[in-house]
Amino acid sequence: MKISPDDMDDIATGSSFLATGGGGDPYVGALIARRMLAAYGDVELLALDELHDEAIVVAVGGIGAPTISLEKLPNGREQEWALERLEACAGKKADALIAFEVGGINSLLTFMAAARRRIPVLDGDGMGRALPEMQMTTFSINGVNGTPMVVVDEHGNNAIVTANDTAKAERITRNIALAMGGQCTSAESMMTGALVKKVSIPGSIGFCLEIGRSLKRSNIDADSFVEDLRGLADASVYGAVRRLLRGKVVDVERKTRGGFDFATIVVEDLEGDGGPMRISVQNEFLLATQDGAVRASVPDLICMVDSETTVPITSDRVSYGQRVTVMAVGAPDICRTAKALSRIGPRAFGFDVDFVPLENLS
Amino acid sequence: MKISPDDMDDIATGSSFLATGGGGDPYVGALIARRMLAAYGDVELLALDELHDEAIVVAVGGIGAPTISLEKLPNGREQEWALERLEACAGKKADALIAFEVGGINSLLTFMAAARRRIPVLDGDGMGRALPEMQMTTFSINGVNGTPMVVVDEHGNNAIVTANDTAKAERITRNIALAMGGQCTSAESMMTGALVKKVSIPGSIGFCLEIGRSLKRSNIDADSFVEDLRGLADASVYGAVRRLLRGKVVDVERKTRGGFDFATIVVEDLEGDGGPMRISVQNEFLLATQDGAVRASVPDLICMVDSETTVPITSDRVSYGQRVTVMAVGAPDICRTAKALSRIGPRAFGFDVDFVPLENLS
Repeated sequence: MKISPDDMDDIATGSSFLATGGGGDPYVGALIARRMLAAYGDVELLALDELHDEAIVVAVGGIGAPTISLEKLPNGREQEWALERLEACAGKKADALIAFEVGGINSLLTFMAAARRRIPVLDGDGMGRALPEMQMTTFSINGVNGTPMVVVDEHGNNAIVTANDTAKAERITRNIALAMGGQCTSAESMMTGALVKKVSIPGSIGFCLEIGRSLKRSNIDADSFVEDLRGLADASVYGAVRRLLRGKVVDVERKTRGGFDFATIVVEDLEGDGGPMRISVQNEFLLATQDGAVRASVPDLICMVDSETTVPITSDRVSYGQRVTVMAVGAPDICRTAKALSRIGPRAFGFDVDFVPLENLS
Repeated sequence: MKISPDDMDDIATGSSFLATGGGGDPYVGALIARRMLAAYGDVELLALDELHDEAIVVAVGGIGAPTISLEKLPNGREQEWALERLEACAGKKADALIAFEVGGINSLLTFMAAARRRIPVLDGDGMGRALPEMQMTTFSINGVNGTPMVVVDEHGNNAIVTANDTAKAERITRNIALAMGGQCTSAESMMTGALVKKVSIPGSIGFCLEIGRSLKRSNIDADSFVEDLRGLADASVYGAVRRLLRGKVVDVERKTRGGFDFATIVVEDLEGDGGPMRISVQNEFLLATQDGAVRASVPDLICMVDSETTVPITSDRVSYGQRVTVMAVGAPDICRTAKALSRIGPRAFGFDVDFVPLENLS
């Protein structure tokens, strides 16, 4: 399937939804990605099973606190610089790119690099959503060491990091991102086609595109969108879809610490007789509780749209008085294995609850 | 001149003196360096004017808060790993090594790497003392970009950093050091012989060795040492020597922040009728004031020895009640140029005083 400049807007919207509150405002990214594809041509979106086993695949994306990208604009060539340096280091050229994270701007960044390079983007990713750290990808969870990993900033300052495991690489590159002004761009996890097929979430970019298309339909409302989403999820590796709450944001407490955005959001239930829902955030919406019970938790996706406009709301844009519809989507099975839950289950983020799949929650 | 395992103790002592309070306790470093030279043979100390102009020179050393190295021990191969990676990256082998900093453990680290490699160490360095940041070397002050620069930790995790200027490289590698547990090892500033002769402080390693020998003479006292030091400084590129104070430490306020050790030390004058001397520390002793007047300031060297044992005292070991002799040594001219003072004068460290050369102070 060919991805056109117009599709960039839909992918931006879909990825903003799948970012589960993370990833920052996709507006600037969508503008740059659209212009990039207009200049360099459409990009092939390649299904994982169409990829040669011997092909070389690289993941590209951004690292850092999403809030910062609203003010520290990219120059648009960072992905290419990172990719070139990684290729030089490995002595191999990338045949295709993959987003390590479908949620947020990272899917757009992958298309931008692919457009300039005229190579395909794979229809899949390493998170199926957005998550704050690199060792939380299905690549890393399934044994892929993401290094050597290249990070660059908008001035060309760069580092090639090699670490004994991805969690260490994450600590090092997170600190480099801080030294680079809070955000930088990476190329990492060079894999063969055979490997990438085993450790990725198939179809997530297509899912993202379809979500964006649905959300952009004229006069769509939040409830019709939930219906669309059910259909899309049924045809995908994702699980159940639940509409959790229609309500009003009544409190937001927010801080940026160590390169992450932390927040707690309280949403008052406007239609049911339930108490307020509390949503805990570390870049992403990680845990939703109501009346003392878990309504949804990471790795399942907690997503929020504006009830009136159906625009996905990122955690840095949540504000008092917003009318929001909160929904949840079951994560793909590869994100729910015991190994996966030890890294991306609620306890991995410091919450004292076990993961219960969305479909088993009331 | 051949440097033997026994010389390692003298260099450790001399470099601890020249560390002007920084560099941490040299004890563990001296033990490792002694064993390394015993195992791999003596190391040639090469005068700068004996070096071929076409030779390739690399600076090696450690980055981070010296306090940490007391608990986080090296494995002894870090310099070699860093050097090998830098050489692979540059496609050139080092013909000789130079310490970027004669003060503290960095001179020992250079000998350790040189012993394993069986290549010479140059008699010179990039600071003539110890200073907290990489852009403070005479290499950087005189236009050498210290990157590509390799940093490694004791587990082999590593990064190759390329930056547009050394100050940015410093910020990035300082943050990497934090991610590596507060300390790491570097190889950097690959230079030709012709260049290194222009941007280095000649003779500083020999000066360091002779200081160590003097301090280790049996029954030397602090005042006889000052006499020895005058003679050694006269025969070197260093300036005047002043004995500032003999006194007692009456207060120490200390904190570790952002990978640096900060402190203020107050020394009561035990022989004169002056008020207490205040010494301000950022890893190193940077500014000594007494009765409202500057007695010595960076880049001139403020050094402290135990009045009873003549053992040099590092800032992390200063404690209440110690009897200390504080002295100062004029920095080499290359450290006192306008360009140098903009980076390593008192104002560069946030002190609201202009630099006045030691020989012009009362």
